Amino acid sequence: MPQGELLDVNSATRANSDGTESVCAVPAARDKLLFTPGPLTTSLPVKQAMMHDAGSWHYEFNAKVNWVRGKILEIAGLSSEAGWETILLQGSGTFGVEAVFATCVPPNGKVAVLANGAYGERIVLILQHLTIAHVVIRTPENTPTDPDALDRALAADKTITHVAIVHCETTTGILNPVVEIGRVVKRHDRAYVVDAMSSFGGIAIDFAAAGIDFLISSASKCIEGVPGFSFVICRRVALLACDGYARSLSLNLLDQFKGFENNGQFRYTPPTHAILAFEQALKELEQEGGIAGRGARYRQNHEALLKGMKRLGFRSYLNPAVQSYIITSFCYPDTTRFSFDAFYRRLSDKGFIIYPGKISQADTFRIGSIGRIFPSDIAALLSAIGSSLKEMGVRMI
Amino acid sequence: MPQGELLDVNSATRANSDGTESVCAVPAARDKLLFTPGPLTTSLPVKQAMMHDAGSWHYEFNAKVNWVRGKILEIAGLSSEAGWETILLQGSGTFGVEAVFATCVPPNGKVAVLANGAYGERIVLILQHLTIAHVVIRTPENTPTDPDALDRALAADKTITHVAIVHCETTTGILNPVVEIGRVVKRHDRAYVVDAMSSFGGIAIDFAAAGIDFLISSASKCIEGVPGFSFVICRRVALLACDGYARSLSLNLLDQFKGFENNGQFRYTPPTHAILAFEQALKELEQEGGIAGRGARYRQNHEALLKGMKRLGFRSYLNPAVQSYIITSFCYPDTTRFSFDAFYRRLSDKGFIIYPGKISQADTFRIGSIGRIFPSDIAALLSAIGSSLKEMGVRMI
Repeated sequence: MPQGELLDVNSATRANSDGTESVCAVPAARDKLLFTPGPLTTSLPVKQAMMHDAGSWHYEFNAKVNWVRGKILEIAGLSSEAGWETILLQGSGTFGVEAVFATCVPPNGKVAVLANGAYGERIVLILQHLTIAHVVIRTPENTPTDPDALDRALAADKTITHVAIVHCETTTGILNPVVEIGRVVKRHDRAYVVDAMSSFGGIAIDFAAAGIDFLISSASKCIEGVPGFSFVICRRVALLACDGYARSLSLNLLDQFKGFENNGQFRYTPPTHAILAFEQALKELEQEGGIAGRGARYRQNHEALLKGMKRLGFRSYLNPAVQSYIITSFCYPDTTRFSFDAFYRRLSDKGFIIYPGKISQADTFRIGSIGRIFPSDIAALLSAIGSSLKEMGVRMI
Repeated sequence: MPQGELLDVNSATRANSDGTESVCAVPAARDKLLFTPGPLTTSLPVKQAMMHDAGSWHYEFNAKVNWVRGKILEIAGLSSEAGWETILLQGSGTFGVEAVFATCVPPNGKVAVLANGAYGERIVLILQHLTIAHVVIRTPENTPTDPDALDRALAADKTITHVAIVHCETTTGILNPVVEIGRVVKRHDRAYVVDAMSSFGGIAIDFAAAGIDFLISSASKCIEGVPGFSFVICRRVALLACDGYARSLSLNLLDQFKGFENNGQFRYTPPTHAILAFEQALKELEQEGGIAGRGARYRQNHEALLKGMKRLGFRSYLNPAVQSYIITSFCYPDTTRFSFDAFYRRLSDKGFIIYPGKISQADTFRIGSIGRIFPSDIAALLSAIGSSLKEMGVRMI
C-alpha cells in the first residue's frame, strides 16, 4: 500500500497533464529518490499537510504542537507522567545538539565525548565554540565506542559531568553501543547525552536501560517529516536543574520548555508547515507499526541493498557486526575508470540521489536505507547502479 | 489577478469535493486568514513549491540556494560585486539576530541597543546570554528611537563598537528612523546592525544612506515565504573581519558564509521545502513590482484597515506620523463587555486570525497588513469585526 501510494503520485501527475495541474499541488514529475541520511523522500500526505498556513499563536496550532510533543514520547515508550518531556527546537539537528550543551552543562561542567566519526567531532566543535571544558575519547571510524575506555576516563577524572555519544554515526553507518556505554555513565553517576539524529524512530532505544538524560533527533530523519526543527527528549528533572546555565537565547532549551508549558507556544516563530508535516509523519509511523514496523522496512531495504551491491562487486566499508541498517558506506571500485562525480551524476540523471563519503581514511560513498523508500526502490537503484557502471566501463566482477 | 488566484483556491477546493482531493494537495477548506506579524498567509504556488523533496547536498538544490542568495541582494538594490552578501540561516528570525551578535562582536566589543519595544529588549536578552557588554538607550513604546540620545552616548563611550536597532518594532508597529540613526552611527565610525524582520521586502531601505553593516530579516515576513530560516544581508568585509569571534557553532554566521562559498551548501541540514517555497515567493515579489509594488499593496491594506476600524469606533495606539503600514495596534474598547479572548475566538470562528497586544503600558490588540492579503480581505475582516462586536453587545459609536 505505501508503494501504491507512490504510484498514485505518478498517475495523478499524468492525469493532470491536461492543464488542471495548476490547481493541484502534484509534482510535475516524480522527484528523484533520496538515498541519503536526510532530508529524505517523504510521503505525499506528509507534503500535502504543508498546504496550510497556520497561525503560530493560534490555539488550534498549539494543540497540534502539544499532540506532537506527547506522541514523540509515546513512540519512544516514555510518558510525561514518568517524568519525560519533548522539546521542539527550530533549526537543524545540530541546533538541537548545541542547545543541550549550551543549556545543560553548568559553568564548571566538563563533557567526555565518545567520537568515531564526523558527528562526534561536531560535538567537540560545539563545545569549543561554547568554551565548555571537554575530553575526547576516540576510536577509529570502523570501531564502536569503547565502554572500558570510558570507564577508565570517568574513574580518573571526577570533574567530568556529562558523557556524549552518537548512536548511529552517519559518517560510516556504524552503530555505537548506547546501552553498554550508558551503564558505565550511570555507574559513575554522570549525565548522559545521546545524539540519535539518524536512528530515533528507526531503531528501538531502551531509555531506561541506557540511563539517557537527553536524546536529540530531528524531524527529517526516521520519523520521515520534512526538515525545519529538531527535538530533544529529556528527563524533566535533569532539564529543570539547568536554570541559569544557558549560553544562548535562541538555543535555551529550558526557556523553550517553559514556553511550551506556560502557553503551549514556541517562544519564537516555529516552522509551522514543517510541524504540520510532522504531525502527519507521526501518524504514518504509527500506522506502520511504530519503531518496530519502520525498523523492519529499513532492515529489508538495507539487506536488499547489501546483497545487490555485493552481487555488483562492491565491498562495504564496515564489518557487518557493527553496521546499522540506516546508512551504508561502500568502497570505491578499485579502478581508475571509476569517478564518484561521474557515477553520482549518472545516477542522478536516472532519478536516484546517493551520498558522498565522509570517512577520512578510505574512499567511500554512502547509500541510505531510510525515508519513504521500499525494497522495490532499492531494486530500481541497484539496476541504475549496474547500468551506470556499464556506461562508465567499470567492470568489478 | 492576485485576488483571482485566491479565488482559484476556493473553486479548486469545491471542484475536488467529489473525492479527487486525495491526490490533489488543495486545502479541504480555505485556511483562516492571518492578520499577524507572521507566519503569514502565503500564496497557493508558494505552498505548492513545497511538494518536492530536494536533496540538500544535490547540485540542483545548491543552484537554487545560490539563486535565492543573489535575488535577495537584487531586491534590496545591492550586489555581490559591490561587496554585499546574503547568508541564510536555519531557525526563526531571532536565530539570525543572535547569529549576528554571536559572530560579529569582538570579545572586547560593546553594543548600544536602541529599544522601544519587545524586539529591542530581545536583543538585550541575546547580549545578556552571550555575555556581551552592552548599553540600552530606551524610548517609550510610542516614541521612535532618538538620534540625539545615541549621538551623546557614542560621544561619551568610545568602547561602544556596535549599534543595534529594530526597524519596524512589531510590538506596536512603530517605524524607527534607521537612516537618521545610521548617520549618527557612521559619524562615530561604529558598526550598524538593523533588525528589519517585519519590514524588509515591504518597506524600502536605503542601505548606503543608512550605512548598514548587518541587516536581518526572515523568510515568513514581507517576502511571503513560509517560516524556517532567517537571512542576513551584510557587507562582506564586515563579516570577514569577524574571524575567531563566534560564540556558537550553529549560529556561526562566518562559517555559514564560508560553507556557501566553498561548495554552495548549508553547513547543516537546510529546511529544503521552505527554501523551495522562498524561491517561488521571491518570484512573486518580483512580479508584484518588487518592494515598491508590495509596499503599495500593504499600504492600501493598512489604510483600508485604519479607516474601517475608525468607523467602527476603534482608536489606534500610535500617532499616525510614526505608524508603519506593517502592523497596527488598536486600543481595547472602553467597556467591560469587551473581552479580547471572546473577540479573538469569534473572529477565528469567522475565519480571521488577529494578534494579541504586546505593549506593557496599554491594553491593545494588533492587526497585520502583510502577507497574501488584499484590501478585499481587509473589508471582510472589518465586516467580521463589526458582527463580532454586535454579538458581544459592544457599542462604541
